[in-house]
Amino acid sequence: MKTVHSPLHAGHAGQLELTAGRLLPGFEVPERAEIIKARIEAVGLGPILAPTAQTLDVATRVHRPDYVDFLARAWDLWIAAGYEGPALPFVWPTRGLRDDLRPDKITALLGYYSFDGGSAFVAGTWGAIESSYAAALTAADLVASGERGAYALCRPPGHHAGVRAAGGYCYLNNAACAATRLRDAGAARVAILDVDFHHGNGTQEIFWTRGDVAVVNLHGDPATEYPYFLGAADERGVGPGEGFNLNLPMAAGADWAIWGEALTTGLSAIRAWGVDALVVSLGVDTWEGDPISHFRLKTSDYPRIGAAIAALGLPTVFVQEGGYAVAAIGDNAVGVLEGFEGR
Amino acid sequence: MKTVHSPLHAGHAGQLELTAGRLLPGFEVPERAEIIKARIEAVGLGPILAPTAQTLDVATRVHRPDYVDFLARAWDLWIAAGYEGPALPFVWPTRGLRDDLRPDKITALLGYYSFDGGSAFVAGTWGAIESSYAAALTAADLVASGERGAYALCRPPGHHAGVRAAGGYCYLNNAACAATRLRDAGAARVAILDVDFHHGNGTQEIFWTRGDVAVVNLHGDPATEYPYFLGAADERGVGPGEGFNLNLPMAAGADWAIWGEALTTGLSAIRAWGVDALVVSLGVDTWEGDPISHFRLKTSDYPRIGAAIAALGLPTVFVQEGGYAVAAIGDNAVGVLEGFEGR
Repeated sequence: MKTVHSPLHAGHAGQLELTAGRLLPGFEVPERAEIIKARIEAVGLGPILAPTAQTLDVATRVHRPDYVDFLARAWDLWIAAGYEGPALPFVWPTRGLRDDLRPDKITALLGYYSFDGGSAFVAGTWGAIESSYAAALTAADLVASGERGAYALCRPPGHHAGVRAAGGYCYLNNAACAATRLRDAGAARVAILDVDFHHGNGTQEIFWTRGDVAVVNLHGDPATEYPYFLGAADERGVGPGEGFNLNLPMAAGADWAIWGEALTTGLSAIRAWGVDALVVSLGVDTWEGDPISHFRLKTSDYPRIGAAIAALGLPTVFVQEGGYAVAAIGDNAVGVLEGFEGR
Repeated sequence: MKTVHSPLHAGHAGQLELTAGRLLPGFEVPERAEIIKARIEAVGLGPILAPTAQTLDVATRVHRPDYVDFLARAWDLWIAAGYEGPALPFVWPTRGLRDDLRPDKITALLGYYSFDGGSAFVAGTWGAIESSYAAALTAADLVASGERGAYALCRPPGHHAGVRAAGGYCYLNNAACAATRLRDAGAARVAILDVDFHHGNGTQEIFWTRGDVAVVNLHGDPATEYPYFLGAADERGVGPGEGFNLNLPMAAGADWAIWGEALTTGLSAIRAWGVDALVVSLGVDTWEGDPISHFRLKTSDYPRIGAAIAALGLPTVFVQEGGYAVAAIGDNAVGVLEGFEGR
């Protein structure tokens, strides 16, 4: 399987994140991608290609164009305003406040275009976002051109990024963009299978009203897990999207017996939908040793995930999402890909 | 003029606030109230009374009862969950996320019930909130009982606190509670005049649909100033509240020539509304030396504010809001009260 990856991800480094009462170095570090890349090379998974150059056309159809424009300008606006260090919001237009006031001031825009304090900007953030997006589109192009599977080693991840909001380490929704690219290339219907520990709230929001891109999420129950405010089992889509969103939340502690059963349920739904292609939001923070997640998958479970996905027989784009146990992330992420390859 | 004040405010100390990319000690410090109190004593403004005991009845009519319940429980939940230090949210249910999921987990609740990272909880926060609220109600009772004016030396402040959201150093909306108490005591119509530098978004939200409590705000234009997402001139109220909200935003740099004119406009509206009593949200962060605000009032301007308010001839409850130039806050806040007294 071919991997698409850019070294530009490394410019997104040194960011801080707001967590429970503290502002700490982010868990989403460059080493994550480097260790996956090293593992790909070690096992000889296949060639690692640079992403091809991409316009922002897909991004501005998946997200609100003004949001994409903001992502590109955020760091420059922050520096121009005289601030230093990672750019973070501090006030958000929640209900009770207006959604149609959007002051052109960086401290306001950071909040307007986010839902948490987890997606900081540093000097290299936009370059990393663009390269991550380009990797997802390039991998989609490989699959659209006939490859059975391709892997976008994306960083930063994307599945929390919504129509016009960054959050949870995510900026552009790479998986949603890959699915859109597959649609553009002729797939009538696409499914996104999100196996990250955290609910892919952004992906769900983006395709909520659509029947052409169906979404399955396996994740920690939002009753106890971030992002808390989306991901319940009763969310099934609306309008043309009704029935094309399937949430499979699980309580903390889920191991393969529980998680694997949810995977079977999710894959059955994808089969029933009769889609032409698949995008996998590949988070491996379901691992038992993940520092910020609460499932109990073992490293030996990851190839089983890949094999189960392969059994669908669909052209498949894997897009890297979370996974914060840095030392294990290579074994686990590449384990899925090897399982898919039947190695 | 009588002042109502409780030493319990001092328990709300050591909190941190999220500001532009940093988590810093809050500007809203106990010394603020202590310096105002010392100034009251120094000029002999009048007796300083302890608040009388209050139920949460008014609070739960001004705010959503579940929000008030949360405020009382927040610190205990935080400690019970094993966290240390000031309790702060890190994810907010902005648009795109659900408003009807409310996980009973402190990290989720903190975001559900706030709109920024500026209202942390420490061990003494709830005690301070309750005492501040009780001071506002006690001052309202003094005025309802015939006093021409009374001053609630509240800390924490309240005008950013909305129907179910803390933010901007505020938890319970003391001014809204005082206005409600005046209504309960027989005033058919009450006006709230908010002269704090920052828009009183919470007060506006609380009375947005009501004609019995009219609100005037003089403040920094949200196009450039916190809270950014409310406070524009076109916000006039809806339904029975239509025409009973008046926003007078001003550009940074406003001095008495500009600000005093806006005050005249605001007082004219209050006269036209024909109200029976007045609550003043008394922020003095309009002062030229305030560290986080951008108007240019001078200490000599504050008695003019008080005199202009006195000319309305209305029973008046002053409720302390912002003001972060600690050394000057006593002169400025008490200057308004002395001006009201004609001293």
